[in-house]
Amino acid sequence: MNNAPTNATEVIAKVRSRRPLVHHITNFVSMNAVANITLCLGALPVMAHAKEEVEEMVDAASALVLNLGTLWPDQVDAMLMAGRRANQRNIPIVLDPVGAGATQLRTKSARLLLHELSIAIVRGNMAEIASLAGVEAKISGVESLSVVGDAGDIASQFAEKYHCVAAVTGAVDVVTDGVRSMRVANGHPMMSTVTGTGCMATAVVAACAAVESDCVHAATAALAAYGLAGQIAAERSRGPGTFQVHLYDALAELTEDTLRAGAQIAGGTW
Amino acid sequence: MNNAPTNATEVIAKVRSRRPLVHHITNFVSMNAVANITLCLGALPVMAHAKEEVEEMVDAASALVLNLGTLWPDQVDAMLMAGRRANQRNIPIVLDPVGAGATQLRTKSARLLLHELSIAIVRGNMAEIASLAGVEAKISGVESLSVVGDAGDIASQFAEKYHCVAAVTGAVDVVTDGVRSMRVANGHPMMSTVTGTGCMATAVVAACAAVESDCVHAATAALAAYGLAGQIAAERSRGPGTFQVHLYDALAELTEDTLRAGAQIAGGTW
Amino acid sequence: MNNAPTNATEVIAKVRSRRPLVHHITNFVSMNAVANITLCLGALPVMAHAKEEVEEMVDAASALVLNLGTLWPDQVDAMLMAGRRANQRNIPIVLDPVGAGATQLRTKSARLLLHELSIAIVRGNMAEIASLAGVEAKISGVESLSVVGDAGDIASQFAEKYHCVAAVTGAVDVVTDGVRSMRVANGHPMMSTVTGTGCMATAVVAACAAVESDCVHAATAALAAYGLAGQIAAERSRGPGTFQVHLYDALAELTEDTLRAGAQIAGGTW
Repeated sequence: MNNAPTNATEVIAKVRSRRPLVHHITNFVSMNAVANITLCLGALPVMAHAKEEVEEMVDAASALVLNLGTLWPDQVDAMLMAGRRANQRNIPIVLDPVGAGATQLRTKSARLLLHELSIAIVRGNMAEIASLAGVEAKISGVESLSVVGDAGDIASQFAEKYHCVAAVTGAVDVVTDGVRSMRVANGHPMMSTVTGTGCMATAVVAACAAVESDCVHAATAALAAYGLAGQIAAERSRGPGTFQVHLYDALAELTEDTLRAGAQIAGGTW
Repeated sequence: MNNAPTNATEVIAKVRSRRPLVHHITNFVSMNAVANITLCLGALPVMAHAKEEVEEMVDAASALVLNLGTLWPDQVDAMLMAGRRANQRNIPIVLDPVGAGATQLRTKSARLLLHELSIAIVRGNMAEIASLAGVEAKISGVESLSVVGDAGDIASQFAEKYHCVAAVTGAVDVVTDGVRSMRVANGHPMMSTVTGTGCMATAVVAACAAVESDCVHAATAALAAYGLAGQIAAERSRGPGTFQVHLYDALAELTEDTLRAGAQIAGGTW
Repeated sequence: MNNAPTNATEVIAKVRSRRPLVHHITNFVSMNAVANITLCLGALPVMAHAKEEVEEMVDAASALVLNLGTLWPDQVDAMLMAGRRANQRNIPIVLDPVGAGATQLRTKSARLLLHELSIAIVRGNMAEIASLAGVEAKISGVESLSVVGDAGDIASQFAEKYHCVAAVTGAVDVVTDGVRSMRVANGHPMMSTVTGTGCMATAVVAACAAVESDCVHAATAALAAYGLAGQIAAERSRGPGTFQVHLYDALAELTEDTLRAGAQIAGGTW
């Protein structure tokens, strides 16, 4: 019997009861959406990027998100400072390497963070993960177009190379630490019609990692809950505008029963 | 007889007829929401943070908002420049000390602005106001968790200490200049499920202060109208996503009759 | 017979089939809305402002947007770098001179960009265009209040002065290269109740310019489609909040038949 849906439900329940603070150093495009999806899940977001305060903010947080969506060199310095403090405090860092592979700044910054810090989870699309893993990928701006190779293999290769959990979202999400691999078949094509849905996935993953130390389980639970909320929202929506609004509502109102019945998790034991 | 609801209605009517320009130096999380709520009330927002233009923008404005939500040192410098010009021009400054008490940068920056500038109104949650007043408070990131002491006393203490009006939002909002105190019982718990609802309250307060020189009255009218819009929106909403959308609509369509009937203002004469 | 609606439909169809990448160096207020409207039209947005990566991002893009809404000097430098690369690559630059005329920084930056770069299209409101053309205009913050003179004449004067296409939005939009002039009567007054609707118009214009080399035609098609989506959204909306949500949906679902029947384009041959 597959216990994953029940276990995923327990992770989400822990987020809701503990309300962990998640510190985001993130991009300006989806910052508002990221804060809102974090609240909808039941966690507390805080955005702070000044070098003068990031370490102190990390001290109050239970997880740290580093998102490269609109990065600039000073922000990368702040990420390093915050990340080192997070490592000292042993709270999980979740990296979203938005657009890695698209420009040298993004690729190099992602690699720098992966080398200098102990990153718990990297949440990205296949092109970003592939380009960081050294696999051929075609990227247009921050959009993943195509990748040569099997998603699971690339994700495992990435996880082994960087000693972290890879959470690769797509039609089917792959979560792996290189040894254990889970697949989450929740989600809906409408999610790709709204900007920042990848960043929101990262935020949900981080909120779960704040309460669940097994990062494979945390990311799996997060992507199942978030993807299921997307499916529910799609049923109520006419287009991308209504979809985003209903996505917030659907995640906020997601019950344990609905998640247990709807989570489509396969490929590992939990 | 309590004339406050009628008087509050007149303040809102003045905003709508004069359409004051409100200059915001504000955070990146809620900037879009702040601009939109300002438009919904009937005022005109402008966001500008470059030191090269803030003074000139203040010259065109009828109120200035300084919001510390995602501050960095250069932005604080721009706030000082804009604030000095606002004081010279005698237009009201409304400060939102987001996260004061959470980091030294935020606490010190809020204190610096309060000492260097003549601030008309500070709009914050109880933890922010308490920490700046020197009262013990528990803060998590930018969220107010708990405060030791009576809200009205702390607000009055703050107002006296900084010679300004304190507008402290919570289940019941307190507005006081240290002598006169008003309480506004409008609002809805759903407001805390959306990011930036505090920043939006500040924006509405500033738009009212732009047309009403009595800052106790301006803040009271603003919080009653905004809170009532929140109550109306909550009735139409399923969750946080739909709530934010309906909040905009509800404030934009709020009639004088609805406000007069629904404003729950107590504790002072007006 | 007026073929413009049919031709406009073809431009939109090309955007949808080619999915061009549009690089935005833009303001923080409407960045999220701009990314979303770009996706709704069928193009791909990417936001990047670091000098270290803008040239490389331009290399991947089919159009470049420069929006001055929350500018600061460093951002203007990045715009110049990106713009020069765009000119080398011969991809269209669309400038949105938000608030030109309101502060020296904005006016001078807009003029600098217009002098240093070959700008294909400038999309602005009448006050912005008039102030850059040297015509008397009254501006409040970033809002256009009044202009002395005929919209068509001012737009033509601007287009001749700066050797570009002027796309001036208002109750009736004017698109002109100084010789050919089109007028688009689509749109709805509710569009002025939401922040960033001007920036979104610019984004839609840029996505069309990415696939249609005749910039008069590209801007005309864009403003007709976007304005018609606004009309459709207004019918479904109660206020500014619901309007923005439905605007996204309406643009995403706009069919060729609806656009052909609803486009109100006059004043030129196409």
